[in-house]
Amino acid sequence: MSRLSVALLGAGFIGQVHAQNLANHPGVAFKAVYDVDPARSAATAAKFGAAPIREVEEIWADDGIDAVLIASATNTHADLLTQAASAGKAVFCEKPIDLDYQTAAKAVDAAAQAGIPVMIDFCRRFDDSYAAIHRAIQSGEVGQIETAQFIARGPALPPLEYLAVSGGQQRDQNVHYFDLLRWLTGVEPVEVFAYGSALADPRVAEIGDVDTSVTVLKLENGALATIEAVRRSAYGYDERIELTGSKQMIEAARQRDGWVNHYGVGSVRSNGLDTEWLPRLIRTFPRALDEFVTAVSEGRPPSATPADGLRAQRIADAATQSLATGSPVAIPAD
Amino acid sequence: MSRLSVALLGAGFIGQVHAQNLANHPGVAFKAVYDVDPARSAATAAKFGAAPIREVEEIWADDGIDAVLIASATNTHADLLTQAASAGKAVFCEKPIDLDYQTAAKAVDAAAQAGIPVMIDFCRRFDDSYAAIHRAIQSGEVGQIETAQFIARGPALPPLEYLAVSGGQQRDQNVHYFDLLRWLTGVEPVEVFAYGSALADPRVAEIGDVDTSVTVLKLENGALATIEAVRRSAYGYDERIELTGSKQMIEAARQRDGWVNHYGVGSVRSNGLDTEWLPRLIRTFPRALDEFVTAVSEGRPPSATPADGLRAQRIADAATQSLATGSPVAIPAD
Amino acid sequence: MSRLSVALLGAGFIGQVHAQNLANHPGVAFKAVYDVDPARSAATAAKFGAAPIREVEEIWADDGIDAVLIASATNTHADLLTQAASAGKAVFCEKPIDLDYQTAAKAVDAAAQAGIPVMIDFCRRFDDSYAAIHRAIQSGEVGQIETAQFIARGPALPPLEYLAVSGGQQRDQNVHYFDLLRWLTGVEPVEVFAYGSALADPRVAEIGDVDTSVTVLKLENGALATIEAVRRSAYGYDERIELTGSKQMIEAARQRDGWVNHYGVGSVRSNGLDTEWLPRLIRTFPRALDEFVTAVSEGRPPSATPADGLRAQRIADAATQSLATGSPVAIPAD
Amino acid sequence: MSRLSVALLGAGFIGQVHAQNLANHPGVAFKAVYDVDPARSAATAAKFGAAPIREVEEIWADDGIDAVLIASATNTHADLLTQAASAGKAVFCEKPIDLDYQTAAKAVDAAAQAGIPVMIDFCRRFDDSYAAIHRAIQSGEVGQIETAQFIARGPALPPLEYLAVSGGQQRDQNVHYFDLLRWLTGVEPVEVFAYGSALADPRVAEIGDVDTSVTVLKLENGALATIEAVRRSAYGYDERIELTGSKQMIEAARQRDGWVNHYGVGSVRSNGLDTEWLPRLIRTFPRALDEFVTAVSEGRPPSATPADGLRAQRIADAATQSLATGSPVAIPAD
Repeated sequence: MSRLSVALLGAGFIGQVHAQNLANHPGVAFKAVYDVDPARSAATAAKFGAAPIREVEEIWADDGIDAVLIASATNTHADLLTQAASAGKAVFCEKPIDLDYQTAAKAVDAAAQAGIPVMIDFCRRFDDSYAAIHRAIQSGEVGQIETAQFIARGPALPPLEYLAVSGGQQRDQNVHYFDLLRWLTGVEPVEVFAYGSALADPRVAEIGDVDTSVTVLKLENGALATIEAVRRSAYGYDERIELTGSKQMIEAARQRDGWVNHYGVGSVRSNGLDTEWLPRLIRTFPRALDEFVTAVSEGRPPSATPADGLRAQRIADAATQSLATGSPVAIPAD
Repeated sequence: MSRLSVALLGAGFIGQVHAQNLANHPGVAFKAVYDVDPARSAATAAKFGAAPIREVEEIWADDGIDAVLIASATNTHADLLTQAASAGKAVFCEKPIDLDYQTAAKAVDAAAQAGIPVMIDFCRRFDDSYAAIHRAIQSGEVGQIETAQFIARGPALPPLEYLAVSGGQQRDQNVHYFDLLRWLTGVEPVEVFAYGSALADPRVAEIGDVDTSVTVLKLENGALATIEAVRRSAYGYDERIELTGSKQMIEAARQRDGWVNHYGVGSVRSNGLDTEWLPRLIRTFPRALDEFVTAVSEGRPPSATPADGLRAQRIADAATQSLATGSPVAIPAD
Repeated sequence: MSRLSVALLGAGFIGQVHAQNLANHPGVAFKAVYDVDPARSAATAAKFGAAPIREVEEIWADDGIDAVLIASATNTHADLLTQAASAGKAVFCEKPIDLDYQTAAKAVDAAAQAGIPVMIDFCRRFDDSYAAIHRAIQSGEVGQIETAQFIARGPALPPLEYLAVSGGQQRDQNVHYFDLLRWLTGVEPVEVFAYGSALADPRVAEIGDVDTSVTVLKLENGALATIEAVRRSAYGYDERIELTGSKQMIEAARQRDGWVNHYGVGSVRSNGLDTEWLPRLIRTFPRALDEFVTAVSEGRPPSATPADGLRAQRIADAATQSLATGSPVAIPAD
Repeated sequence: MSRLSVALLGAGFIGQVHAQNLANHPGVAFKAVYDVDPARSAATAAKFGAAPIREVEEIWADDGIDAVLIASATNTHADLLTQAASAGKAVFCEKPIDLDYQTAAKAVDAAAQAGIPVMIDFCRRFDDSYAAIHRAIQSGEVGQIETAQFIARGPALPPLEYLAVSGGQQRDQNVHYFDLLRWLTGVEPVEVFAYGSALADPRVAEIGDVDTSVTVLKLENGALATIEAVRRSAYGYDERIELTGSKQMIEAARQRDGWVNHYGVGSVRSNGLDTEWLPRLIRTFPRALDEFVTAVSEGRPPSATPADGLRAQRIADAATQSLATGSPVAIPAD
C-alpha cells in the first residue's frame, strides 16, 4: 500500500502533537506544514523533515498531497474544510468545525458534495477504556442502556481570553461527552437541561460562561444521561464514565498515575490523578489518526464523521440555551 | 445513668431490625411492643422479653415508658407522633413523617409545642463512609463544596402495590439523599430539576411513577448536585457518593462484598456488590438508635430533627413536581 | 433438633468471645461456665444466663452437658481434653492442644479411643475469603497449586511474658498458616526452612524467640509455600494470601477498614487496615462454632480435627528446629 | 552540550528496543550498528540512519564513537567490555556481564583499570514504582527496612534451548531482584536459601534448572527478604514488591492493563495483567539509557555500576548453590 501524503495545517500546541503522530505513522508520508506564523511552519517542518508552506493555496494545488490535518484556530476550520473540499483533499479536522452551527453545516455540506473523506477528531472514541465500553455495549453484554454518567473535571481554569472565544463550557468541554454519549449508546438524546455556576472564578460569569455544570439529557428510548463538568478541580485531571444497562453496569474508572501504596497507621496513601489532561489522552491521538488513515485507504467513512460533529454541536447549542434560559431545551432532530 | 425505657410501635420488617437493636443497646430498656397485628406483637415481645401491647393508648398512659420508636405503616406516623407529643414521650420516627407535607408539618408542630425530643431515622447519616465525609467537610479539609454526586441503585423493583402508595421515587428513595445533601454540605438547595423514566417495568409509568431518574439541584451558594436513582439495577445494591470541594475531592466508594480476586488470562474476577440493600445499611440502625438515646440523655437535639425531615420532604415534593411538569421547580424556603 | 448443651471452660479474653457466640447460637444451650477464677466464672455466667461452676469435675459428672468449649490457658488443654474424653463430652478446643507434641498426641489419642467428637479452633478456615479460596480450589478452577504465599503481620509485639511461654513465633503465630496451607491445598508439606530475627525488640532474642520471620515449605508434589510473619507491623493488622495454580491465581487481598477516598493534588488518601487482629477475625468464631455444632449433630467429623491440630504442630516444631539449627528440616510424616 | 555518539553492538530482540531509544534520545547521536549477522546490522542501521559495521574493531578504532551499548549474546559481553576498555569507550551493558563470575570480574577489572564509565542495564531501577519506593526509603519515611517481598511471575516458559544456556532461574530471572533488593534497601544480604521445582515442564528438571522457586535472604542487619519466581504463570506477567519498615509498609502493586470494570450479579470483572513482560518494563529502558547518558556527561558513576552487577551475580551464584545442595549458603563479601 502506498502511504497517505498529509499536510498539517496549524502548528500550535495540538498541532505539535499531531505532527509527532504524523511522523510516527508508518502509513503516512508527512509532507508539508502550514501555519499563519511562518517561523512556526519552518521549525515544525524542519523537525519532522516536511516542507514549510507559506500560502495554504500551495497545498490545494499540490497533487502530491492526499490529505490535510486541520489543527489551526477554530475560526479557520470551516473555511479550510471548504477549500479542501474544492481541492479534493481528505480531511482530518480538529473539533469543532465552527462555533456557529450554520457555518459548520455549510462547510460539511460542501465536503459532502465534493465526496471527500472527512473525520472529526473526537479522540476519546480511541481511549482504551471507552473503546472497551463501546465494544462491550455493541456485543450486547451490557444490555439495553438505561443510564450514563460522565465526570469531566479539568485541572485548572483556562485563561479568560480563551474562555471568551471558546463558545462556553458546553461547546468547548462537554461536546466530547455529547459525542461519546451518542457513540457509546447508539441512541440520540432528545432533550437537555443544564445548571451552571462560576465557582472557580467570578469573572467567568462576567463573560457569560460557567466553570461548573451539571447537564442532564433524556434519550429517545427514555434512557437518562448526566454530565458533571468542572473546569478547575482541586486534585488533578479526572475523567470517569459509568453506564448501566439491563444486564450489567460498565465503568471506565478514574485512573491513578501510578501503583505505589504507602500503608501507615490508619490510612493508605496512593498515587493520585494526572495533573494535566494531555497525559490522560495522549495515546488517543495516534489511534484517531490511524483510524483516519485506515478509513481513507479502505474507502469507508471514518469512525467520527462530520455528521457526528454536527450532532454533538446541536446538543451543545441546546445545552447552552438551557443554561441561558433555565429551562429544558428540545434538541432539533435534523 | 438509668436506661431509657422504649416501646416499639410496629413490628414488621424494619420493626424487627429495630427490635433487635433495642434489645442490644445497653442504654435501652426494651419494654413494650405494639403492632396492629396482635400475633406479631406477641411474637416480637416474647422474643425480646418485652410486653405485648394491645392498644397503643396503654403506652401513652404508661409512666414507665420514656420513648417510642415508630416503625409502623407510613400513614400512621403523623398520628402516632402527635399522640406521643400529647403523652410527652420522646420519639424516634421512621421516615417519612407523612407523605403529605402539611400533615407532616402539623405533627412536627405538635411535637415542637410539646417540647418532646424527636429524631427522624435518616440512618445514612450513620453510615461509616458518610459520617467520615461529614467529619472531613466539617474539618475544612475538603474546602468549599462545589459539586455533589449521589448514585443510588436498588437491586430490584419493589412490588407495584408498594410503589402505588410510596409517594413516588423522589419521596421514597431520593429523600435519603436530599437529607444527606443538606447534612453533608450544610447548604440548602434552592431549585431542582428531574428527568425520569419507567425502564424496568412499563407498569411503573401507568401508576404515575418512574423507576429511573436523574435529579439535579442548585444550592444557594451555586454548588450543584446530582442524584441518579435506579430502582432495579442489573448487578446488586449500589450506593456511591462523591463531593468535590475547593481543596479536595472526597468519595464514599461503592462497596464490594468481599476481598477475593481470581486472576485469569486477560481479566480479574472479584467480589461484587451486596444483593440487597439491608446488608449495606444494617450497621447504621444501631448507631442511629444510639444517637437518639444519647441525645435524649444529654438533653440535646438529635442529629436528624423533624425540621430536617420536613426539609427533605419539601425537596422531594419539588422534585416530584419537576418530574410532572418537565420544568425546574423552586424549593420553598420555609 | 434439640440444642447442644455446652459448658465453657475458661472465661478470659477469647473465652468472652466464645461466650457471646455460644449465647447467640440458636442450636446451643449455653449451660455452664468454669474458670480458675471463680469471680470470672460468676460474672460471665451471670451475663449469659449460664451456671457458674466451681470445680470442673461437676461438668464431667453432669449428664445435661453434651459438650465443652476449652478456652482456658494453653497448658491445661491436653488435660481437659483427656478428661472430656473420659466423660464422653464433645470438645471444641482452642489451639494448640499442647505446646509439647507428645503431650498433645497422647490427649488426641485418648479422645480417639473414647470416640468423642473434637474440633480444633482453626478459625481462619471460616474467614469469608479463605473459605472462598478453599471452594475455588476444590472446584478445580485454580488448577494444580504451584505456590502459596501467606502474609501475617500483627499490629504490636505481645508482652514478653506472653512470648516467653508461647512456644515461639512458629507455634504461636504461624501454626494458623500451616493449617491453612494444608487445608487450602490438600497437600502435605515435607520440609521447612525458616529465617528469623528480633527486629521489633532485642529482648525477644534474649528469650530465644524471633518477631520477624520468613518460612518456606516444600510440599510433597513440589509446590512451594512461603509465610512472612511479623509480630509488630508499623501500620496495623495485615493478613493476605495468594495462591497460584496451573489455571489461575487466587488472592485474599488485604482488607481496608472502610471505603472513603480523599483525592488531593498528587495523591489519594484511603482507609487503612484494622488496628487489631480481632476485628479482622471476629466473624470467624461464630462460624467455627456453628461447624462444630452442626458436625456433632450430623455425627460427622468437624472441619478441623485433632489430627489437623497435630499436623500443624509437627510443622511448627520442624520450623522452630530450622530456626534453631539454620538448616532445612524434614517434617515427620506420622 | 554535544551529543554522545553511540554504537549499538547486537541488534536482536532487546537490541531493537535499545535502537529505538538511542534514536529517540535527544542527547544521543546514534552512529553505528554492529551485529554478527550483517543483514541484521544493515536493516537496523538503515531504519535509524546509522552506519552498519562489519567488524567490531572498526568501532574501537573510530574516534567519533564515544560509547557502545552492548546488547549482543551473553557470552560475548565480557570480551566486548574488555575491548571497549582498551579502546576507551563508555559502555552501557546488558546484564549479565558473564555467567561465570570470575570472567565477569576480570572484565570489570579491565574497565576499572581503563577508567571508562560503565553502566549495567538493571532497568527495573527505572521503573516508576520501584524508583518511587527507592525515593521513599531514602527519605526515611519508611523507617528501617525489616522485610522485603518480591513476586516475579513470567507469562510463559522460555524455550528449553534458552534455559539450557541461561545460567538457571536464579541467574537469569532473580538477578534483577537481587539487584533491586540491594538498591532499594541499601543493605547487603549475607546468606541465602532457595527451594525450587520444575512444575511447568518436567524437562526443565532434566536440564538441571527449576521453573518455580522461593528464595529467602538474610540481610546483614537482620532484615529478611523473599523472592517468589515463577517462569510460567497461568494469568500473565506479574511483578509485585512490598517492603515493610519500622514506620510504614510500601508497595508496588501489581498492575492491571486497563481500567474497565464490568459489574454483574455477584461479581465484577476487570482488566487483567499484561500478557508479556515487555509492556510492563518498556518504559524503563529509555530512562536507563538517559541515566547512562547523563552520568557520562556529568562525569559521575551511573546508577547501576559493574560492582552492582558483580554483587547481584554473587548472590545468584549462592542461591544456585543452595538449590543444588539443599542448604543455606553464605554470600561471599568480596
